[in-house]
Amino acid sequence: MIQTDIIIIGAGPTGLFAVFEAGLLKLRCHIIDALPQPGGQLAELYPKKPIFDIPGYPSVGAGELVDNLMEQIKQFEPGFTLAEQAMTIDKQEDGTFIVTTNKGTQVHGKAVAIAGGLGSFEPRKPLIENIASYEEKGVEYFVKNPEQFRDKKIVIAGGGDSALDWSIFLAEVAAEVTLIHRRNEFRGALDSVDKVIELKKQGKINLVTPAEVVGIKGDGHVEAIVVEKEGETFDLATDYFIPLFGLSPKLGPIANWGLEIEKNAIKVDNALDYQTNIEGIYAIGDVNTYPGKLKLILCGFHEATLMCQSVYNKLNPGKKFVLKYTTVSGVDGFDGTRKEAEKAVVKAID
Amino acid sequence: MIQTDIIIIGAGPTGLFAVFEAGLLKLRCHIIDALPQPGGQLAELYPKKPIFDIPGYPSVGAGELVDNLMEQIKQFEPGFTLAEQAMTIDKQEDGTFIVTTNKGTQVHGKAVAIAGGLGSFEPRKPLIENIASYEEKGVEYFVKNPEQFRDKKIVIAGGGDSALDWSIFLAEVAAEVTLIHRRNEFRGALDSVDKVIELKKQGKINLVTPAEVVGIKGDGHVEAIVVEKEGETFDLATDYFIPLFGLSPKLGPIANWGLEIEKNAIKVDNALDYQTNIEGIYAIGDVNTYPGKLKLILCGFHEATLMCQSVYNKLNPGKKFVLKYTTVSGVDGFDGTRKEAEKAVVKAID
Repeated sequence: MIQTDIIIIGAGPTGLFAVFEAGLLKLRCHIIDALPQPGGQLAELYPKKPIFDIPGYPSVGAGELVDNLMEQIKQFEPGFTLAEQAMTIDKQEDGTFIVTTNKGTQVHGKAVAIAGGLGSFEPRKPLIENIASYEEKGVEYFVKNPEQFRDKKIVIAGGGDSALDWSIFLAEVAAEVTLIHRRNEFRGALDSVDKVIELKKQGKINLVTPAEVVGIKGDGHVEAIVVEKEGETFDLATDYFIPLFGLSPKLGPIANWGLEIEKNAIKVDNALDYQTNIEGIYAIGDVNTYPGKLKLILCGFHEATLMCQSVYNKLNPGKKFVLKYTTVSGVDGFDGTRKEAEKAVVKAID
Repeated sequence: MIQTDIIIIGAGPTGLFAVFEAGLLKLRCHIIDALPQPGGQLAELYPKKPIFDIPGYPSVGAGELVDNLMEQIKQFEPGFTLAEQAMTIDKQEDGTFIVTTNKGTQVHGKAVAIAGGLGSFEPRKPLIENIASYEEKGVEYFVKNPEQFRDKKIVIAGGGDSALDWSIFLAEVAAEVTLIHRRNEFRGALDSVDKVIELKKQGKINLVTPAEVVGIKGDGHVEAIVVEKEGETFDLATDYFIPLFGLSPKLGPIANWGLEIEKNAIKVDNALDYQTNIEGIYAIGDVNTYPGKLKLILCGFHEATLMCQSVYNKLNPGKKFVLKYTTVSGVDGFDGTRKEAEKAVVKAID
């Protein structure tokens, strides 16, 4: 079982920054996220788009902010369990917690911080009757590891940035890429659309539009999909079917953890430390609610910081160690590195 | 009288960022600060030192952070009254406020946000009996405008970075620069100390150490100072005497505004909007206190944001306008500029 101090559920900006503040207090963190990469919405939904309200950044790319946060917390060696969804939290008799994922991974920690954003981003699934029986048997809703598709035949469905971007990327990896969309028009970044047009001309991407995937065939694994185009249906042989119809946030398993929920969010004590109704479980960032709550990244940063101080105080009763100016104190990483401001030198002139 | 929506007292990072969040809600701000430049402690005490706990910045120079915040708020055209200290807040019958500075400047606004940091930074003054009578008559505790000293004789006293840096800078401006320090050793950045040694060799800076300024002479304006060196005293003719012995924060006039004070800070309602005991007056950043308070810049950013939303709600009862993702909404400046994320294009491929 993985051992840590704070189990963080959610690898969005709030969850990531919590690692830094915990580290200043010598607390270790392990992060669990259902998405295959850290960054939450920022990395999954709009990595190339700018954010204008991060304090001190007139403009910062969402992906760039995630990269910077990863760099900032590196020193504190966070653990990551990615592409797994936290399913249960079990409070132990000694007040510690065990979180178990849908893949059976277990993490044991002294406190839990739910930084789940708008919930877990679940893929919008096409309405194909037997699709569930092919999941992880040729049907993939995310591209977690592109190498999985090397020299395979793949069909991607969708008309947005994800469908365009992965078609472009996998055109160089897969044996055959077919992109199916129910309209002739695609909605994405201009250069992605232009690139797909070019790859189509080069014969590296097959385009089938306007069309829909209406069935899946295969014995225990996807072997073909059924396509409906302009009133006619036909089979198309393929090893993988990757529907990329976007993600929709679902509170999901969080709703079953005995936490007080209001308006699809977790109620917390904002007058003190963003703790939930269960002692030792905190909720920070967009996933929580309280009077005057604003769902902004900068608010998550503050909430994460006060949460860490509260955990520290609980674990070290009577001990005083308050987060203070890093310019004065420096930052000591768990990896032995130290960041510090240049000290003034004392030097005689005369 | 200057008219605005939110009067911000204090131009540190929290006060500056408040302008941005207010701007998103179409509220204008006017900032008053006792220091001659924006940035508070960051600009005055450690502009060249790094900060490690600004979220998304593994390391950022304090001065660079101030520059970035100034760039971020430019669009919202904040007003500034600098080098003046806010002395009184008068609540009007209609619930608005008039803030008056020590120079008599008056600002009229609908709400007041005190972002006073650790208080106003007041210069540590040398113990010279008649020094008060020469203030602004040749005795200057800050270098507000270097041009004031062009072709003049000046004496700087002190042994830290400010004394070194201003001696170097003014060596090119003043007719004569004398640097007096009570020890032979100076405490500052290595390159500053080396530069002073070089300028001394070139005869551009006169160094008098170990020595102290013990008196001031002159008829209505500084004409000479009295120096004590190794038991002997002598007069040194000068136009200006600039003691740079550092700053110490004083809560100052804030203590007289009828606000509830605890541990040298202003008590606020952290469960809602960081309002003080006087309706319409808020306190944000290091100047406030509440259960679990941490004096960190990132907390000030959060507090500033919730304060702005609260002011908006008060001024626009019943109207819903909640701060939301700038990536989606974009940012409209008061100067007519607009920042926005690139929109997806819709383009037919077939």
